[in-house]
Amino acid sequence: KTTVSAATVDLSHLPRVKQEMVMPPMAPKHEQVATGGPKIVEVSFVTEERLMVVDEDTDAKIWALTYNGSVPGPMIIVHEGDYVELTISNPENSVFEHNIDFHASTGALGGGGLTHVLPGEEAVLRWKATKPGVFVYHCAPGGAMIPYHVCHGMNGAVMVLPRDGLKDGDGNALTYDQIAYIGEQDYYLPMDEDGEYIQYESAGEDYSDSLDAMRTLIPTHSVFNGAVGALTGENALKSKVGDTVLMIHAQANRDTRPHLIGGHGNFVWEGGSFTDSPQTGMETWFIRGGSAGAAMYTFEQPGVYAYVNHNLIEAVLLGASAHFVVEGEWDNDLMEQVVAPRPMGV
Amino acid sequence: KTTVSAATVDLSHLPRVKQEMVMPPMAPKHEQVATGGPKIVEVSFVTEERLMVVDEDTDAKIWALTYNGSVPGPMIIVHEGDYVELTISNPENSVFEHNIDFHASTGALGGGGLTHVLPGEEAVLRWKATKPGVFVYHCAPGGAMIPYHVCHGMNGAVMVLPRDGLKDGDGNALTYDQIAYIGEQDYYLPMDEDGEYIQYESAGEDYSDSLDAMRTLIPTHSVFNGAVGALTGENALKSKVGDTVLMIHAQANRDTRPHLIGGHGNFVWEGGSFTDSPQTGMETWFIRGGSAGAAMYTFEQPGVYAYVNHNLIEAVLLGASAHFVVEGEWDNDLMEQVVAPRPMGV
Amino acid sequence: KTTVSAATVDLSHLPRVKQEMVMPPMAPKHEQVATGGPKIVEVSFVTEERLMVVDEDTDAKIWALTYNGSVPGPMIIVHEGDYVELTISNPENSVFEHNIDFHASTGALGGGGLTHVLPGEEAVLRWKATKPGVFVYHCAPGGAMIPYHVCHGMNGAVMVLPRDGLKDGDGNALTYDQIAYIGEQDYYLPMDEDGEYIQYESAGEDYSDSLDAMRTLIPTHSVFNGAVGALTGENALKSKVGDTVLMIHAQANRDTRPHLIGGHGNFVWEGGSFTDSPQTGMETWFIRGGSAGAAMYTFEQPGVYAYVNHNLIEAVLLGASAHFVVEGEWDNDLMEQVVAPRPMGV
Ligand SMILES: [Cu+2]
Ligand SMILES: [Cu+2]
Ligand SMILES: [Cu+2]
Ligand SMILES: [Cu+2]
Ligand SMILES: [Cu+2]
Ligand SMILES: [Cu+2]
Ligand SMILES: [Mg+2]
Ligand SMILES: [Mg+2]
Ligand SMILES: [Mg+2]
Ligand SMILES: [Mg+2]
Ligand SMILES: [Mg+2]
Ligand SMILES: [Mg+2]
Ligand SMILES: [Mg+2]
Ligand SMILES: [Mg+2]
Ligand SMILES: [Mg+2]
Repeated sequence: KTTVSAATVDLSHLPRVKQEMVMPPMAPKHEQVATGGPKIVEVSFVTEERLMVVDEDTDAKIWALTYNGSVPGPMIIVHEGDYVELTISNPENSVFEHNIDFHASTGALGGGGLTHVLPGEEAVLRWKATKPGVFVYHCAPGGAMIPYHVCHGMNGAVMVLPRDGLKDGDGNALTYDQIAYIGEQDYYLPMDEDGEYIQYESAGEDYSDSLDAMRTLIPTHSVFNGAVGALTGENALKSKVGDTVLMIHAQANRDTRPHLIGGHGNFVWEGGSFTDSPQTGMETWFIRGGSAGAAMYTFEQPGVYAYVNHNLIEAVLLGASAHFVVEGEWDNDLMEQVVAPRPMGV
Repeated sequence: KTTVSAATVDLSHLPRVKQEMVMPPMAPKHEQVATGGPKIVEVSFVTEERLMVVDEDTDAKIWALTYNGSVPGPMIIVHEGDYVELTISNPENSVFEHNIDFHASTGALGGGGLTHVLPGEEAVLRWKATKPGVFVYHCAPGGAMIPYHVCHGMNGAVMVLPRDGLKDGDGNALTYDQIAYIGEQDYYLPMDEDGEYIQYESAGEDYSDSLDAMRTLIPTHSVFNGAVGALTGENALKSKVGDTVLMIHAQANRDTRPHLIGGHGNFVWEGGSFTDSPQTGMETWFIRGGSAGAAMYTFEQPGVYAYVNHNLIEAVLLGASAHFVVEGEWDNDLMEQVVAPRPMGV
Repeated sequence: KTTVSAATVDLSHLPRVKQEMVMPPMAPKHEQVATGGPKIVEVSFVTEERLMVVDEDTDAKIWALTYNGSVPGPMIIVHEGDYVELTISNPENSVFEHNIDFHASTGALGGGGLTHVLPGEEAVLRWKATKPGVFVYHCAPGGAMIPYHVCHGMNGAVMVLPRDGLKDGDGNALTYDQIAYIGEQDYYLPMDEDGEYIQYESAGEDYSDSLDAMRTLIPTHSVFNGAVGALTGENALKSKVGDTVLMIHAQANRDTRPHLIGGHGNFVWEGGSFTDSPQTGMETWFIRGGSAGAAMYTFEQPGVYAYVNHNLIEAVLLGASAHFVVEGEWDNDLMEQVVAPRPMGV
């Protein structure tokens, strides 16, 4: 055990709080500006292996590897200086060993080296949030299992807020009315000779086929929140004119370029670090594979906004699209349909 | 109609100017620093479907979908606070419905929701330029037609200048002597079993094959201004030592990384927003798929400069190369051929 | 000869120093803050074509094209205002003509136009380092030979330090204890019908097959310092808690996204320019294909850190992984294994 010879630390004076994990695209309850001093924030992850539909239309399914059953895993939110204390449990009936690497943490492969839990095991890891920003976490059991687990959905994001909240480049406070937590997942689903997605009986049965598919580097699907359509139709995100949304975009493996059709990134932390000033007025921002970034926008018009990976092939043919449905009053100064489509030469 | 219930706006007090569209790589006449107050800038786009040669050497052709006949579509230039009033017309003999999504605008899917013109129709859209920067526009008729139209050339760029012009990070004015407007286009041309590009009789006939090719995410061509060689040889860009060029690079779908061989990006707005300070002294800059960026350079040496997508496979094998031919005096202080190639050991 | 008609420059008053080239991941001896005025720094490159093992496990080999025998080529370090004077020699027994394009230089295709050396030839090029930053250099003999040579290893990096050294965004001096110079190389190795890598008898014999493989844009390997495992095991990088490493990452052709597992980029010059403030606290940074960037980190915990391209498929299946082995005392405040893995419900 790495820590055996290290000096013990006594954190018993710190308050402890439990953070209830919620399903994406929701974010857990949190303060934007921290009240009080550093805390130990307790969270629990159960590693769940489950068959998930990726695309109903083509009957594409995957034995997803997850934290708490969702792709991406739940978002954790703390403030700089807080401690995250994670209990990770791997159910008896799991096929795989799992662990967790927090990009936000320091040492031991992001905690990956201290959290290898076999089926039926649990472990507890505590790490201090010293870097404000949004960061990916993911499973990293070793060797080819690393991309295999990550490309089967086993990843998510942590947000470490500055204690005094977000700021623009001039130091003015920035606040948001809601968070939209979007995890983009690249899947590499094996196909049979007829181009049909192969159906597997249990987790891990696709291992060898998956590695072959992954080696092409071309995903069969790139989806938001686990499946095609997970954030459209009935599941569309909702907002209203005047409201400010903080869009957290995590991609644990593959580069992506989010764009809000009809809107912008007013303040964008592309690299995800809150110690850097946000970029402003962006049309499309870039999330490096293996990172999370944040973009803030205040809606000015009602209607439907599509939020997409702006490689439009990936957005439309591979699945990387979400919708915001925004209520409010239309502003004809910003945009007006002067002449609706009509026969030419009228 | 979305705008029915909205308050009317009266812009009749604003001056109106027509902006004549010119072919890329040219930019329309414009002021770098705005004189006077906001204007309504009128522009006209005709959606033209035409057979274009992509690469003479391999007889690769595409039924391009265009605005005004060119790939990319014409550049529009306005100042922050101006209004763009676009008339979009779709000729009777078109195969497809078209529309336009301006990333620079706000609401209604960037205007896409208000401009669906069938063959024989026209529409007029007005939007206010509130965000300074360079921005992509493109057709987005819905569903798989979105990447299909975009990957058939139906995209271009708008530049929204700050009213008082461009600035460096310290607030000093930056001006340019010329604009080079480069649209990089990824094409996914279907091939037959012998590896020959399939020849289609009319626009849209390649639809199903194209979707199959696009799904690979690997373009057969990535070209500047519509075709291999469109900006080399007789069509090379021209400049001279001491002159400053503003290179606008638009890529509506796929990431790219422009590089000026033998030069640099002295001031680079990678993300394309003029509310952010430009990066400086760059060797290679990154344009996210679905965005436009700008780079400014002042030539210091005469000769030929290649301007490339610095994935050199894409530059050379897929077509993403242009040339600048620069007149002037060589500066031996900056670079000198001390010994010309000669037999070793002389 | 381009320079015939140009005014001569007399640099005979400048001191001359020879910089001994060392093998990557080492950097040549240098001052972080320059003492004295500008110098002429003499370096020598020999273009060596040699059969290299890319991956022992699959017997993948390549007839690499190199500068001084290594992939990447040796790092050159100078200060802004210094002159690099390179002697480039191409041995008699070479197959190919070679040259060199320095992204850090100005004019003549980065010197590429002045350094075409046939087998048995040598040339001398001098250029002034006017832009501080880290920059790629590479062979660029013309046409399809450009990506062919670059994708066969013929590239490396120059670092041009500000005369007064590196600075953070507030102007405070930043110094490092060591440099880790990592060149990421994408290889496109031709395979036979059984999926075995084809063995070629001599340099260049793979030319036509290689172009076919490159056109897919999907590398068979993406490795650090020339081969799978070149920076792991016995060849792992070494450091200690409290030491600061400057990681220089060069990729001459293909985008990549470095990440230090268990650590961070405390200061990151993603675009590689030292005239821009470094980004801070990054989880993963982005190196545009055709560029070099720098990231600085001070180790806070002992143990093994993997340094990877965080497309984890590329890291694990294609080879883009290195290791740092770091000595020192574990800090339980930053991270503690509160409960080691144990059976659940104990
Ligand atoms: Cu796992
Ligand atoms: Cu990671
Ligand atoms: Cu269209
Ligand atoms: Cu768009
Ligand atoms: Cu060469
Ligand atoms: Cu280059
Ligand atoms: Mg169905
Ligand atoms: Mg740290
Ligand atoms: Mg981040
Ligand atoms: Mg021909
Ligand atoms: Mg707006
Ligand atoms: Mg832009
Ligand atoms: Mg072996
Ligand atoms: Mg220069
Ligand atoms: Mg660089």
